[in-house]
Amino acid sequence: MLYDKYSVQTIRVDTPSARYDVFAGTGLLANLAPRIERIAGRLPRRIFVITSPEIWGVWGETLLSSFAEPPVTLFLPPGEKHKTMASVEKLLRQMVAAGGDRGSLLIAFGGGIVGDVGGFTAATFMRGIPYVQAPTTFLAQVDSSVGGKTGVNLPEGKNLVGSFHHPIAVFADIGVLGTLPERELRAGLMESIKAGIIRDRSLVRFMEEHVEDILRRDGRALEKVIAASIKMKADVVNRDERESGLRMILNFGHTLGHAIEQVTRYKALLHGEAVGWGMVAALHVASRRRTISGSQAERLENLIYAYGPLPPLKLRPAKLVAATGADKKNVGGVRRFVLPVGIGDAGVVEDVTAAELEAAASYMLAQAAENPR
Amino acid sequence: MLYDKYSVQTIRVDTPSARYDVFAGTGLLANLAPRIERIAGRLPRRIFVITSPEIWGVWGETLLSSFAEPPVTLFLPPGEKHKTMASVEKLLRQMVAAGGDRGSLLIAFGGGIVGDVGGFTAATFMRGIPYVQAPTTFLAQVDSSVGGKTGVNLPEGKNLVGSFHHPIAVFADIGVLGTLPERELRAGLMESIKAGIIRDRSLVRFMEEHVEDILRRDGRALEKVIAASIKMKADVVNRDERESGLRMILNFGHTLGHAIEQVTRYKALLHGEAVGWGMVAALHVASRRRTISGSQAERLENLIYAYGPLPPLKLRPAKLVAATGADKKNVGGVRRFVLPVGIGDAGVVEDVTAAELEAAASYMLAQAAENPR
Repeated sequence: MLYDKYSVQTIRVDTPSARYDVFAGTGLLANLAPRIERIAGRLPRRIFVITSPEIWGVWGETLLSSFAEPPVTLFLPPGEKHKTMASVEKLLRQMVAAGGDRGSLLIAFGGGIVGDVGGFTAATFMRGIPYVQAPTTFLAQVDSSVGGKTGVNLPEGKNLVGSFHHPIAVFADIGVLGTLPERELRAGLMESIKAGIIRDRSLVRFMEEHVEDILRRDGRALEKVIAASIKMKADVVNRDERESGLRMILNFGHTLGHAIEQVTRYKALLHGEAVGWGMVAALHVASRRRTISGSQAERLENLIYAYGPLPPLKLRPAKLVAATGADKKNVGGVRRFVLPVGIGDAGVVEDVTAAELEAAASYMLAQAAENPR
Repeated sequence: MLYDKYSVQTIRVDTPSARYDVFAGTGLLANLAPRIERIAGRLPRRIFVITSPEIWGVWGETLLSSFAEPPVTLFLPPGEKHKTMASVEKLLRQMVAAGGDRGSLLIAFGGGIVGDVGGFTAATFMRGIPYVQAPTTFLAQVDSSVGGKTGVNLPEGKNLVGSFHHPIAVFADIGVLGTLPERELRAGLMESIKAGIIRDRSLVRFMEEHVEDILRRDGRALEKVIAASIKMKADVVNRDERESGLRMILNFGHTLGHAIEQVTRYKALLHGEAVGWGMVAALHVASRRRTISGSQAERLENLIYAYGPLPPLKLRPAKLVAATGADKKNVGGVRRFVLPVGIGDAGVVEDVTAAELEAAASYMLAQAAENPR
């Protein structure tokens, strides 16, 4: 093997429309060119990197190190407000101007926004060119870079425009996480907790037993958590590429999580933090319904707090419930809600009522009103 | 059968990514709702029609007649200048505002621009919803509505952004052509001549023998030409969905055709007219190279003029050749060029030189300088 000195795990995505590998480990970024060459057969004449100025400032040199001819670098300014059609059009025009054609390749090198915007740019440039995901945040590595979802926001809401367009490979380089702000790491780990709760009890146990290792970014511990999280997601995507059934369970913690984000206008919390609180609320619904025991709920809630702190919240429960789209006149409450079944399994129910949601939101907000958890 | 009194031909598109029928005939528009219901299983709760104000003014009532609940109508102003990302974003926002969701269906009801923009809107709304093509021009019926290509322009060039997104059905209602301007019909027929030359000699013969019937829009004659043209295109698309090989032959007449459009800034000629002149030039290259005989070239050139007039052109041959991207320093000239082989077959060559192109352009421009042909 060429990369003996590095530790890399390979997870296969295999859906009706695409088959590719997700690599998670060390030394990936510094060997990107030969790795892409091996996958694509040859290095395309024109390669574009879409990235953010900060990421490029810190890691650009490492990425460039393995390319004989440097790719064309295009920048997306940071922040959700640039996740727009206008940004995509600007990037597409820059690619045309720089001589891009149907044989070009794109590398999305950054966090979730760069991945979503870069993927959508690749999906639509000359009706689709191949691209590679090189996610640089924990959250993007375990979640958004895998599964082929790409897109941007409209003023009316998030991710309302996009494509399913799978990358030809994902390179999740754990070394890059060394410069990730502490808060982003903790928030990202909420998606790994989610992965464990809905589908991998051994991941739950590992995260319970290695809190300290993981938070001090021990390479082996991080690789284990990241690879297990990606495996879970890839497994779900492989069975349900287009989110017609099973893939829905990935939304565990997201019903109230999204409501929190919406009510706080995406400003107060990171996505993972909102999902953390959303899971606390969903665990309450689950334990009331006895799909998990009270002690299981407590154990999982403590796991969430172990990777906190989650920021405190001061909101009215009714307002959160309204933001979920649950209609009080509609007996059914929210249309679909993900409930864990024990630890490591989950299902989707369609009969969670607005009253149940409000009780869960009240419980969660009581926890969130105390000191940061 | 439900539509006994109408004559309808069914052509199947069957590619790795999609399988659907193209219906060509009469009475399709007036029965759109039950036809869609039969294909989709049920009529979605929310249906959108993207159309142009003129088409809607003339044919809107007919389309609405079979819907118990009228679809939401969204307008795209006429003209290439509205084939933009901004138009797509506006349509997407209107769909969100009108309650569109992932279960919605879109109908693209108009000419080629409406089809391309409507298809791209469907491809990107919430990462893709099903859509139906209901083309209203001859050109859109025989060409752009079949094959799954969707997209918009950038200031840098045409169709640089888009997706491959196949409709669930195409309804080419011949009755709609009754109100099509004469010039558009003649221009559209150039694509049928192209279809015959590259792949269907019986279509060439039919078009030679029925010029008058076709131009006075006799239903049976039009249906025959349209169905044969669609069959040719579907057959090519079925074998080469993503334009990696065979599909290239659909570009017969388009190398110099596109050059004419570019040099005249898409203002002087309709697309089909430019392709008509482009075919005249390509036939010249072919007869010089003896892939067709001189008499075959003459016969086909006369067929093109029989469906004219093609507008006169006053251009410099060298300027046209430059616009094809043929590089004089590059011995190869244009990268790929489609040459007919006899009548009803074609191939792609990569060694046509700039000198050959210039000779062909000179010949063609001599014809085009005379009175309209």
